[in-house]
Amino acid sequence: METPFVDWLLERIPADARLEVPPGDDACVLRPPALRRTVVTVDMLTEGVDFILGPDCSSRQVGHKALGVNLSDLAAMGARPEAALVAVCLPRHNGSAIAHGLWEGIETLAAAEGITLAGGDTNAWDGGLVMSITAIGSVPPGKAWRRDGALPGDLLVATGSFGGSLLGRHLAVEPRCRAALEIAERFAVHAAIDVSDGLSLDLARMMRASGTCGVVRLASVPIHPDAVRMSRQPGDTRSPLEHALGDGEDFELLLALAPADAIQLVATGEELTGIQLSIIGEVRAGQGLVAEAPDGTQRPLPPQGFLHDFEA
Amino acid sequence: METPFVDWLLERIPADARLEVPPGDDACVLRPPALRRTVVTVDMLTEGVDFILGPDCSSRQVGHKALGVNLSDLAAMGARPEAALVAVCLPRHNGSAIAHGLWEGIETLAAAEGITLAGGDTNAWDGGLVMSITAIGSVPPGKAWRRDGALPGDLLVATGSFGGSLLGRHLAVEPRCRAALEIAERFAVHAAIDVSDGLSLDLARMMRASGTCGVVRLASVPIHPDAVRMSRQPGDTRSPLEHALGDGEDFELLLALAPADAIQLVATGEELTGIQLSIIGEVRAGQGLVAEAPDGTQRPLPPQGFLHDFEA
Repeated sequence: METPFVDWLLERIPADARLEVPPGDDACVLRPPALRRTVVTVDMLTEGVDFILGPDCSSRQVGHKALGVNLSDLAAMGARPEAALVAVCLPRHNGSAIAHGLWEGIETLAAAEGITLAGGDTNAWDGGLVMSITAIGSVPPGKAWRRDGALPGDLLVATGSFGGSLLGRHLAVEPRCRAALEIAERFAVHAAIDVSDGLSLDLARMMRASGTCGVVRLASVPIHPDAVRMSRQPGDTRSPLEHALGDGEDFELLLALAPADAIQLVATGEELTGIQLSIIGEVRAGQGLVAEAPDGTQRPLPPQGFLHDFEA
Repeated sequence: METPFVDWLLERIPADARLEVPPGDDACVLRPPALRRTVVTVDMLTEGVDFILGPDCSSRQVGHKALGVNLSDLAAMGARPEAALVAVCLPRHNGSAIAHGLWEGIETLAAAEGITLAGGDTNAWDGGLVMSITAIGSVPPGKAWRRDGALPGDLLVATGSFGGSLLGRHLAVEPRCRAALEIAERFAVHAAIDVSDGLSLDLARMMRASGTCGVVRLASVPIHPDAVRMSRQPGDTRSPLEHALGDGEDFELLLALAPADAIQLVATGEELTGIQLSIIGEVRAGQGLVAEAPDGTQRPLPPQGFLHDFEA
């Protein structure tokens, strides 16, 4: 649709050499980078499920998060972010203020990550706020990080630390795009996934796709201070480690690499990427997840995390 | 998210040479057709605004429409449809049945138009159904049909006929992809737009983008039988022509071509495309829209159509 808000938006999107036809037409036309593949992902965020607008969550933060989670998916493919399209359904009440806040959050992150805003769709209704962002990236042919390539013997490397994201990091997503590109340039990553729904749940997905078993060394899981804070809240019965394994929305990367590569990555990668890197376990033949205690004993690890359910 | 429904979906999406990494990973990886540009569009449909689920509108029809409106945007760019990603937010109640219906509608149209389903995102909440589809197409460099290229002297050609789409055609969208490709191969189209919000409103958009004035020959506007039926309904005060000019959701194409090309297109195009083609007016210097009566008198034509509004 075209409205004063869309006109206002279009004036703010700078020209970009990647766009042969800029936003404002029936569709945008992208010049795909020569000899690269196009990587596309879409994620939808809904009010009440992914965020609750209010004093603790502005529409600017929602805009940031909506783009951030999509860029995190591109990072998990080892892809260079190029462009994004933003579809939004605004509540009729206060829609204009919400729309401007969303734009600020999106535009700031887009500029920081060097992507062009290539199009979108703006709607209004009497329901809650819904955002759907489509992020477009590029990778050299055959170089995308898939989740199904982990091999028995690989070590599992994680960026950052985990748990307690609900205390604020679930909104202030920092997609690991730059770190992913630095790593992709130097290391052969066999498989990758980003942790959106839970460290153990997303690792289980990688293992299922790869037809392998993941061994998590519990003492090596990097625990975020927020996980400690959350476990100390009144009524919280979970340990910091349990928060780290199951909270989700950390938007860190899990990578599977051959042992020598993983060791080299952890030894050199922190300086390269500016982000903490840890070996959290290994891949072996089999299926599912195993937790390894510091004394070497192993037990099955049920995947924990967030599932979007709907009734039959 | 992964659920039994997503597993069920992934089993149903056939392998496609355009996908280097198929759906099921953090993102899909597309092999862009060599020497072509990538065209991307997104449209969001919401329950209560774009459709009302019930006896007159099944979720299968909603799935068809959600993909159809996006393919119509690709047609309006003169682009070949290649792929689509589907983000959906399902009501928690009855979500599974709705999801399966959506899939049937999407899959059937995708197969008919020869596109691959490249990914998506499935969510659930307590609100109404929201669908956001991202459609990806391709065009040769510099060949996309923009809306800003109409020139004074051009004639305006429309596919199909207009008005009364609410009687059913607004759901049974027939995107003009094949016709667009046939025309693009043979004719130099200066500007194009699809009629989603209203013939006069969308034409006004093309004229505004082009910096030109559109003259609509009222006697030449092809009126759909549904427009006649609607104008005869009790309480309806609008003429069939008014319905044709302002109802919208016709998903026909408006094209601006040099006069000789337009005349040739209308003379030969119907056999080529299987779709009615009509010259409905011309482009001249100036701005806005002008209605020309059969006797040659002209008056300003206020654009009519559907605007998605939200309150400040």
